[in-house]
Parts: sequence; structure tokens; C-alpha cells
Amino acid sequence: SGFVHVKNPHLDSMEEDVLYHLDLGTKTHNLPAMFGDIKFVCVGGSPNRMRAFAQFMHKELGLAGDEEDLADICAGTDRYAMYRAGPVLSISHGMGIPSISIMLHELIKLLHHAKCRDVTIIRIGTSGGLGIEAGSVVITDTAVDSSFQPRFEQVVLDDVVVRSTELDKDLVEELLACSKEITDFPTLIGHTMCTYDFYEGQGRLDGALCSFSSEKKLEYLKRAYDAGVRNIEMESTAFAALCGLCGLKGESCAALVS
Amino acid sequence: SGFVHVKNPHLDSMEEDVLYHLDLGTKTHNLPAMFGDIKFVCVGGSPNRMRAFAQFMHKELGLAGDEEDLADICAGTDRYAMYRAGPVLSISHGMGIPSISIMLHELIKLLHHAKCRDVTIIRIGTSGGLGIEAGSVVITDTAVDSSFQPRFEQVVLDDVVVRSTELDKDLVEELLACSKEITDFPTLIGHTMCTYDFYEGQGRLDGALCSFSSEKKLEYLKRAYDAGVRNIEMESTAFAALCGLCGLKGESCAALVS
Repeated sequence: SGFVHVKNPHLDSMEEDVLYHLDLGTKTHNLPAMFGDIKFVCVGGSPNRMRAFAQFMHKELGLAGDEEDLADICAGTDRYAMYRAGPVLSISHGMGIPSISIMLHELIKLLHHAKCRDVTIIRIGTSGGLGIEAGSVVITDTAVDSSFQPRFEQVVLDDVVVRSTELDKDLVEELLACSKEITDFPTLIGHTMCTYDFYEGQGRLDGALCSFSSEKKLEYLKRAYDAGVRNIEMESTAFAALCGLCGLKGESCAALVS
Repeated sequence: SGFVHVKNPHLDSMEEDVLYHLDLGTKTHNLPAMFGDIKFVCVGGSPNRMRAFAQFMHKELGLAGDEEDLADICAGTDRYAMYRAGPVLSISHGMGIPSISIMLHELIKLLHHAKCRDVTIIRIGTSGGLGIEAGSVVITDTAVDSSFQPRFEQVVLDDVVVRSTELDKDLVEELLACSKEITDFPTLIGHTMCTYDFYEGQGRLDGALCSFSSEKKLEYLKRAYDAGVRNIEMESTAFAALCGLCGLKGESCAALVS
């Protein structure tokens, strides 16, 4: 049917669903009227960048009104920022798996309550490149964990549940095809590694703590490269797992800062 | 000596240390002049709340100038917000362990470069209460993981290192003594459970995904209570582990929303 679905039998019996961290709710807002026609959701870490992206889309789509006037739909909270430009929703998710997970739970419920259909979600974020040219864009075929496995371990109460991190293959090809029209920066398909930590978890030598040598770091990054990893960030496995389970056509597509 | 210490032999040989996510650095800023006299650091998730806290401290300490004029020291980035009021630094850390870890790595290096001494750090955040009165404050004696163990598992490259999450016992007692002078809200000492997820990880029945029954949820929360847990949040184990390793007298002290 193309609807975004939730997998929670308790939701039906709830009188009201409050999306706490988005400052929205089923009783306080008419979600179908506000969001029913959304077809694309773009997410990224930084609120300012997601505002700039919405303004860019507003201009690109030739929408009426001044893009400078776009208002933060989640202005009542400073946890996340949300803007819309026509059928495109642009939302920030902060840094790391726990932060993006809270946003995605509430976004998925939002799209479900709004009766959205055939929604494509794309994470557009920064990441560290691995053996590729600076400024490249990596279109993720598979999100892997720090052991290069395509899995996301979710703690449910005190059980560990392992979830798949596969992304939509057609969407990967579609995005690659689009990239052929834009020759400003190299674009490639590769695995994206997702870590829980920016310093010790990604082999950086400049954190407050560092217990490994430069050689050990390089050896680890080489093993990652050999396993197919082309960039490293901190949200992709949770993003892939949650979107996959809830019928959102998802893709993670990261621009590289190094 | 009371200095904040880093545990990274590589730092000494670096010509410049850029604290990326704070938009500060050793070459671009005179860190000892800016921060050398800091004695207290308060951290919490929300940027607006940490601004309000700095303004409150500014008034409480009777400092010169209008508290409305306090400027965000990290204004060049929207990853975190930082304000100071006399010897007190107030910083936001976003939501979840990865987000607070990035901030703490850079904060610890900041305090180290600034040659700060005898710094006390306190996390003041919201959390969910467990079997206690709404509006209570829990002073954490030990941060525990979702299996109620006093440990933080840090992935270093692809190894898992287990770290202690003990907090400063004297500081716990000191804070409890202070609380006796304020009778507005109940204050107690207890374990704080730290999870990687707000919905499935904390037994909530209203996420986009929920695979457990209300009974299973209550059984888990009862086991947590019996293990000494009095509140649940998403940063305390990483906070305790990092501060403990770097000589910061740390305490997590959470106000309860439910």
C-alpha cells in the first residue's frame, strides 16, 4: 500500500500520541493536513544545515514565498529542527545512534498518523572518508558496525536484538544515476561504517583518551577498507534498521569532509 | 596536583589542537586566559536550558552585567552551546552517549589546555523516575547499564574495553547536604540507569516499534528498581567513565519529569 507503518500494537489503543521531542501530537496538531503530502524526508545532524537545505529545496522547486521565511516546525523544542519545502521535509537528528533513534521513532509515527504514502528518506550528513578523494559523496549500499558486519544491535529492555541494515537497492542505483548529471564531485557506492564514538571508535589520535598507536589505527582502517568501507559516521546502522522495519525507502548518502 | 589530565601520548606532539565541535582551538584561542579560572562545569542535554542555567548562575553569583547578554562561546557551531558565569561553565551535550562523548573529549582537552585545577563537573539533566515522586532529584551514586551493571563498554577500534562508572562519593554527600537547605523538592541518592535508546530500551509502549507487553515492561522496571535504580537517562555511564579517567570530580544529578 506504500503507507509508512508502525510495529506497535499498543499505539491503536492510545487516545493521544504525543511526539515529545518534536513538540507535535495527534490531539494538538492536524498531522494529515500538515504532513499528508510529504514524499521525501532528508535528515542530517546539524539544525542549521537542515534549515539551509530546506531553503535550497524551496528555491530549487520554485516555491512561492521567500525561503528566508521558512519556519522551524519544531520551534517549541530545541531537541530537533524541522522545515518543509513542498513535498520535502528536512529534519536534524543530532549526533549518534541514540539521538537519531529518538527522532526516527517520532518521525515514523508522524508519517504514519499523517497517512503519508511512498515516502523516501535520505540521510545527508558529513562523514570521514576512507581511501577516497576529499569532497566525494558515498552512496551507502550497506551500513556496517565497527566489526564490519551488516547489523544493528538494539537493546530491547535487557535483551539484545540483531537487526538488518540493508538499504534500498533501487534507490542506490537511482541516486547514482542522478549523480552522473552532476560532475562537481566524485560519487561512489560503498559500505558505510557506523560507530558509537568519534575519537576512540574511529581511530582518531587526538581525543582526550587514546590507547592505540598510529600503526594500530592504520591497520584497523586498512581492514575496514578491505571489507568495503568507504566512509565512517555515527548514525547509519540505526537509520537503516529503523527505516527498513517501518517501510520507509531509505538511503544514507554522506558528503565527506576528509 | 588537581589538574585535569588527558590520557593520550599523541597530544604532546601535535602543533595545534582543534576542538572541532566546540569551534575552539589552541592556535585560534587563548584557552588559559578564557577558561583558566573555571572551577565548575555543568552539562545537560538542551542548549536552551544550559543558557537559562548560566543566566540563573550569573544572577545568583551577583555578577556584573545583564544575564540576557551572555553569549554562546561556541556560536560558530550548532553542535553544542556553551556559556560562562564567573567560575561556572554551562554546556549542552545533546542526547545519548555518542553525543555527550564527543563533547566530553573536547571539554576535557579544553580544561587541560587551559590548565584548570580542581574542576567539579555536574550533569544536570532530565530523566525518567522509577518508583519515586514526580519532581524528585536523584543524586547518582553509581551509573549502571541496561543490565544494572556499573560499567561502560567502550569500543576502541574493534575491541571492547570495559570502564568503571563510579562517581565521586564525597561529592554525592556534599550535594545531598546542600539539598537539605532546599525543601522545595525531594532529593535522594540512587543508581541511575543509562540506556542507548529512549523507546525500546526504556520499556516505553509508545514508540514506532514495540515488541513487548505491558507486563514484560513492568517486570523489567521492577527488576531495575530492585537493583537500586531510581532513574533512567541516556548519558550517565559514559559521563562517569570519561570524567573518572581524566581526574574530573564528577557527579550526575538528574531532575525528574515523571
